[in-house]
Amino acid sequence: MGIYEDLYPVFYPESVAVVGASNQFRKSGFFCMESIIYRGKYKGKIYPINHSAPEVFGLKSYPTLSDVPDKIDLVIITVPAPAVLDVIEECGKCNVKGAVIITAGFKEAEAETGKQLQEDIIKTANHYGIKIIGPNTFGVVNPLADLNASFTSTLSDMEKGDIAFISQSGGMCHFFSYITMDDNIGLSKVMSLGNRCNVEFVDLLKFLEKEDATKVIALYLEGIDNPRGLFEAAKKIVRIKPVVAYKGGSAKGMDHLTCSHTGTLAGNFEMYNGMFRQAGIALAENSTELFDIAKIFSLARTPQSKRIAVCSPIAGPGIVMTDTLIKNGMDITKFTDHTINRLTKLLPPFTFRYNPIDMPFTQDIETISAVIDCVLADEDVDSLGFIMCQQEMFTPLNSGIAHALVGAKNKYNKPVAVAMIAQAYKFHSERLYLQNNSIPVYPTPERTARALTALSEYGEIIHS
Amino acid sequence: MGIYEDLYPVFYPESVAVVGASNQFRKSGFFCMESIIYRGKYKGKIYPINHSAPEVFGLKSYPTLSDVPDKIDLVIITVPAPAVLDVIEECGKCNVKGAVIITAGFKEAEAETGKQLQEDIIKTANHYGIKIIGPNTFGVVNPLADLNASFTSTLSDMEKGDIAFISQSGGMCHFFSYITMDDNIGLSKVMSLGNRCNVEFVDLLKFLEKEDATKVIALYLEGIDNPRGLFEAAKKIVRIKPVVAYKGGSAKGMDHLTCSHTGTLAGNFEMYNGMFRQAGIALAENSTELFDIAKIFSLARTPQSKRIAVCSPIAGPGIVMTDTLIKNGMDITKFTDHTINRLTKLLPPFTFRYNPIDMPFTQDIETISAVIDCVLADEDVDSLGFIMCQQEMFTPLNSGIAHALVGAKNKYNKPVAVAMIAQAYKFHSERLYLQNNSIPVYPTPERTARALTALSEYGEIIHS
Repeated sequence: MGIYEDLYPVFYPESVAVVGASNQFRKSGFFCMESIIYRGKYKGKIYPINHSAPEVFGLKSYPTLSDVPDKIDLVIITVPAPAVLDVIEECGKCNVKGAVIITAGFKEAEAETGKQLQEDIIKTANHYGIKIIGPNTFGVVNPLADLNASFTSTLSDMEKGDIAFISQSGGMCHFFSYITMDDNIGLSKVMSLGNRCNVEFVDLLKFLEKEDATKVIALYLEGIDNPRGLFEAAKKIVRIKPVVAYKGGSAKGMDHLTCSHTGTLAGNFEMYNGMFRQAGIALAENSTELFDIAKIFSLARTPQSKRIAVCSPIAGPGIVMTDTLIKNGMDITKFTDHTINRLTKLLPPFTFRYNPIDMPFTQDIETISAVIDCVLADEDVDSLGFIMCQQEMFTPLNSGIAHALVGAKNKYNKPVAVAMIAQAYKFHSERLYLQNNSIPVYPTPERTARALTALSEYGEIIHS
Repeated sequence: MGIYEDLYPVFYPESVAVVGASNQFRKSGFFCMESIIYRGKYKGKIYPINHSAPEVFGLKSYPTLSDVPDKIDLVIITVPAPAVLDVIEECGKCNVKGAVIITAGFKEAEAETGKQLQEDIIKTANHYGIKIIGPNTFGVVNPLADLNASFTSTLSDMEKGDIAFISQSGGMCHFFSYITMDDNIGLSKVMSLGNRCNVEFVDLLKFLEKEDATKVIALYLEGIDNPRGLFEAAKKIVRIKPVVAYKGGSAKGMDHLTCSHTGTLAGNFEMYNGMFRQAGIALAENSTELFDIAKIFSLARTPQSKRIAVCSPIAGPGIVMTDTLIKNGMDITKFTDHTINRLTKLLPPFTFRYNPIDMPFTQDIETISAVIDCVLADEDVDSLGFIMCQQEMFTPLNSGIAHALVGAKNKYNKPVAVAMIAQAYKFHSERLYLQNNSIPVYPTPERTARALTALSEYGEIIHS
């Protein structure tokens, strides 16, 4: 069997048992139960395992895994570290396919016993062919299967989408999930690998490569045990779907920290960066950018090249966007004569008719729509960065502008991204409409520019 | 008279006239009227000037400035460019102190006539001693005087605060205002200088230096006519109040753009950067950071040095924050033996008791409060970066953590900043409570780290 078949029951289990399931608030077995039963979303069978309680969360509970009368695909383990090995042994006997070990206190702990315990778990799991996520993980969320095998029930609210997030850190899973949920973007997976027993980044990449529903892979990593394997896997995957990565713990002197986190050295940042770049992985410079790039990969079509146009009703943010694009190596393309002639007819004097277009005096939707069409029609333009603004003169136009952007994007099949200079709660329906129609919206010109750059760089990779 | 006295009537006028005031939606004279009368906030006298209408927005209107029976401090001009010079001449005769010229089509326009027109306006204004903001400006907002002399009435909703924002771009004024309003932070001024006739960055710096209510100055600039003057003024001001600047149009080949924007060359980025740094101005790398740094300057006390502690209930974001701090030159201080002894007694095994502190297994508020106290008590710690997290185990603790942070901050008088890993709409009252108590809250570990770095660098400057 391949890695896809091996991991499939972990992400799409027909039944789940929670070992250490508890009615007691504050226990992780409580939170994991809360997640798995959350609003009845998960449709598979759920078996709480608890030595004494007859029922947990109102479900019949079993003293041990062996007492469960049916087959179990996935086991979520929350019992203390010293008890975990026996549970894995029992998993093997019950023909369990995968286990998520929430429990901490293994390789990452200070004591040597933790390290040995983890080694023993790996041996047993490999003997029985059980795939282990963790230990020391917050868990796994698979919105596509309505599965929340983590200790954070809020993440059950996540929408289904096509971005998979793989992380070395549960905390960063929370960050990524929340920023995504705030933006009405869906995910296809969220998983924290924790200490990694027999499931590594490279295994998950290979799984996600084969999962058609996942279109984009986002990674947060601190250090990896097998950089070469990751490199080879990524190189192959990026031809099929884009990968974006953010590397934590890259400053000097961080190794002792990342090691105490999930038992891995952070490794040489420059080495990783060079390797990622060579593999065609987009590099995020911070956690926000990791999301921004994953989002544009998910929503927008990949352009042919770095030739871009910028269009703004307000000069300053247009200058900032252009500035950032140039610094990031984008090509602020020269419009064709045909385009400039059309623009000259459309725009009033005082208006900058070259790229970037600044059109503060254009306040009718017909002209703005014509300008957008004209720019995207230009054969030397492969993408467009557009500024929208909350301002009493433009506010009434924004709905029409959104409509024009979607229309022209569909007509010319070129990616468009919008920087929305507005209060956060404004233009909710315009934002949704744009994003539902493959035009990502960002709150600053710089973030828009960085996302468009990553998209164009990916375009150059796959079109080369 | 000094610049403070000269500019005072512009920012604190007892009466305002709007030349070109209009009842017609879409005219800038309409929007400026909307701003100045907004909900009756401005308590001075308002005189619409309109050649034909007897009333504008229900207020008695006058055909010309000379027809107004009372004195006028500030005139907002929205009539077309060719008519502006006559209005300035009339302002002079009516003893008007200042004018905000919204109208565009001067030095920034393609035609030579615009340039000449601006020269003539400068001559006339200087002859009469009228201070001009603009032309080609979105205007000026002074929440401290309930004055909105701009074409964007939404900005009247801005809270009073102690950050002044001076910008070369009206668009960036909107960005800065909205991000500030979204975060319940107040401002003391928002102003776009536009083409700059006889009021330059340096004049406003000098005005704000003397205005006690302004504690922080934030600048967005593209190019300046008198860099040396700005340098000298800033050097003096930063001893009294912090200044943070963001430079747009710094990529190569941007000069033609910034010139068409407000008639100024962008100039050499490295030269500006070096000059700013030497003057003690904090440098923002993007528009979000401009706000983040201004915010921490406004809220938090300035620390003595770069020695910082990091504390997190979830490892990943703590590692990211530490990583960013180290890259930015901060000193992740070594705790004293006394602190480590106290922490060892407080924290369970598996917990990283050194700096940064990772305490995923600490779920009682007494221990967390004691850890916070212990860290801020350390004589080698001058500031603290703290991670808060929306997670079912920690969510019930967040209110108590906020309380502990405020208590310890007040006790030891050291700045604290929080990265809140949560959905945007969560913990609203905790965020407000923290910020109202001088603890800025940011949505990512990196933004928190960058802000704390700028604050500490400023601390080193003023304590050196």
